[in-house]
Amino acid sequence: MKPRLFTPGPTTVPEETLLELARPVTYHRAAEAKAILAEVSEDLKYVFQTAQPVFTLTCSGTGAMEAAVSNTLAAGEKAILCTAGRWGERWRGILKAFATNIVPVEVPYGKAVTADMLAKALADNPDTKVVFTTLSETSTGVGHDLEAFGKVVAKTDALLAVDGISGVGAMECRMDAWGLDVVVTGSQKALMMPPGLAFIGASEKAWKKIDATAPRGFYLDIRRYKKSLAESDTPFTPGNTLIKAQRASLKRIRAEGIENLWARHNRIAAACRAGVEAMGLKVYAERPNSALTVIAVPQGVDGTATLKALEKKYGYKLADGQDTLKGHIWRLSHMGYTDSFDVLGALSALELVLLESGFKLEAGAGVAAFQKTYATGK
Amino acid sequence: MKPRLFTPGPTTVPEETLLELARPVTYHRAAEAKAILAEVSEDLKYVFQTAQPVFTLTCSGTGAMEAAVSNTLAAGEKAILCTAGRWGERWRGILKAFATNIVPVEVPYGKAVTADMLAKALADNPDTKVVFTTLSETSTGVGHDLEAFGKVVAKTDALLAVDGISGVGAMECRMDAWGLDVVVTGSQKALMMPPGLAFIGASEKAWKKIDATAPRGFYLDIRRYKKSLAESDTPFTPGNTLIKAQRASLKRIRAEGIENLWARHNRIAAACRAGVEAMGLKVYAERPNSALTVIAVPQGVDGTATLKALEKKYGYKLADGQDTLKGHIWRLSHMGYTDSFDVLGALSALELVLLESGFKLEAGAGVAAFQKTYATGK
Repeated sequence: MKPRLFTPGPTTVPEETLLELARPVTYHRAAEAKAILAEVSEDLKYVFQTAQPVFTLTCSGTGAMEAAVSNTLAAGEKAILCTAGRWGERWRGILKAFATNIVPVEVPYGKAVTADMLAKALADNPDTKVVFTTLSETSTGVGHDLEAFGKVVAKTDALLAVDGISGVGAMECRMDAWGLDVVVTGSQKALMMPPGLAFIGASEKAWKKIDATAPRGFYLDIRRYKKSLAESDTPFTPGNTLIKAQRASLKRIRAEGIENLWARHNRIAAACRAGVEAMGLKVYAERPNSALTVIAVPQGVDGTATLKALEKKYGYKLADGQDTLKGHIWRLSHMGYTDSFDVLGALSALELVLLESGFKLEAGAGVAAFQKTYATGK
Repeated sequence: MKPRLFTPGPTTVPEETLLELARPVTYHRAAEAKAILAEVSEDLKYVFQTAQPVFTLTCSGTGAMEAAVSNTLAAGEKAILCTAGRWGERWRGILKAFATNIVPVEVPYGKAVTADMLAKALADNPDTKVVFTTLSETSTGVGHDLEAFGKVVAKTDALLAVDGISGVGAMECRMDAWGLDVVVTGSQKALMMPPGLAFIGASEKAWKKIDATAPRGFYLDIRRYKKSLAESDTPFTPGNTLIKAQRASLKRIRAEGIENLWARHNRIAAACRAGVEAMGLKVYAERPNSALTVIAVPQGVDGTATLKALEKKYGYKLADGQDTLKGHIWRLSHMGYTDSFDVLGALSALELVLLESGFKLEAGAGVAAFQKTYATGK
């Protein structure tokens, strides 16, 4: 049986990137290492769509989220937290650890925070320093309208900080044009790498606040990364083999083109939703994003058992819901190095296990709908 | 030309470990991933020589050093900092960032802090909460007598926190038997891996202080790792492909046996020092450690140019001194996956470039002395 990874992180990594990881290790302060970091940093600016430097941290996405909090906020300062799921809650955990004054703008799982809700919260809290939000809320499949959020926040003195961990590369996201002040992402999602690296960029408006805020840590103090990157270097020993491998995946992204990448994800996501609905299933997210499709487990079906059968019988590894959503949703990633044929196969496998478990559906309806929508856009 | 890495981190990685890194990526919350983490965590306890859990952080060694500070100290609490080089200074940078009241016990580069100096500082400062020190001061080649430090600190209420980043695995280090309360290390030194992971263990005495100290961060809060590891899990997405590869290198270490590993490093280091001296060169460190040999650049030789020639002509990559020591020392690692034949080759290459630059030495004297000491112990 052939194992296939469809979890919303980590995702499948291109073969040429994996092979980079098997190369002999080299010195991280050599001229070659600096040239690679410089190249990766340039490609990250392209991926973020920003003219600002993007820093490579050796940590997971949560480390970069902590950097977004600890570098911009002093204890007691006010932050608006837009939360629509578990990753909004991750922001909350960090904000609490840093003693921030949190104003929550919260919606139930499956729903999206709107720009109007955010505008009202900002109007009610003019002393807000930073707004935190999530591009792709991977726990529910919701995507937020960050272009609209950016317009709302730009009218104020507040910063807009974005968890783009599973969104950047999979969904349209224009840091500079949309007025996103802090954007973080991780290597193991649409950037086609194993976990281990995270990336953070900050706008000029953000740097003013960062420079006016006393450091609250050392390893995640992005002033240190800024100073080092000016010399194509890192302040601490980086995961240099990961950076070299990230270069290979970024080359792939540049070759495809970021707008083509977004369009590919949109096209696959639309086809996937059509396939899911043709199988008699429902998409869980009210405002679905293109990084993954989250499917509501239908009445009478054991969601967790279905995923286990899917993996055991057909090798397809999808993700269960987390915490209270466990057993209630299936999460199918189509991020990064995943194409339409991969997702078609996943729907085929899902149809098979559902049929075998006695769920009523018309065999072939899902894959046909996927194919039709993928081919015709309808 | 064949490139050979002799920098004191990163170090050469075994081929079977590199190949692990090229395997397809899998889900980090799967049962297999948990089993691997459990296995790695057990092997790390063996490497640390502790019965306490050892946590795997996805970050560089500095991240684990920050965890040692931020989890044990509140702002304003007193710490004794034993510093003998750049890595002692790294502790200082972190301690400053966390507003610690620092009592320095400092010696010039090349010298070692003694247990007597530490005992005096502790007697003068009975309110000390944590003593920070360095097992292998890689910037100068000095090793500290941590067995003696442990005895001194054990008589007090203070904790002893050890930067074991380039020492653990290369030098005898018995966390429990020596009374080391917090030990940190990184993957890219004697643990035979690329950079990207760091490890931290804490004694029962340390946990009492940690549990009594309010969290000062989120990503490096080791309470979270402790809670997760009880379920063979991590609190945040770990570098799971690195963990899988670390397993392969740890298996190699277990197969060799930790005491054999220490003995091998000691034997190679003694032979290397004999070789260096037979070439008419001087070992820089007063109390040299077995992780690396640091050689004082002789009068009239351009240290930096010699290293460049060594790499360009013969493929041997040694490390220069850092900051004020640049050009004044050569740092030759014999950590981890490096055997006597490798180091013999490095001495041969060094002899060749020195001869070619006009430095007076007897060709063959260095390698002969290395071989004699390695073979006979004399």
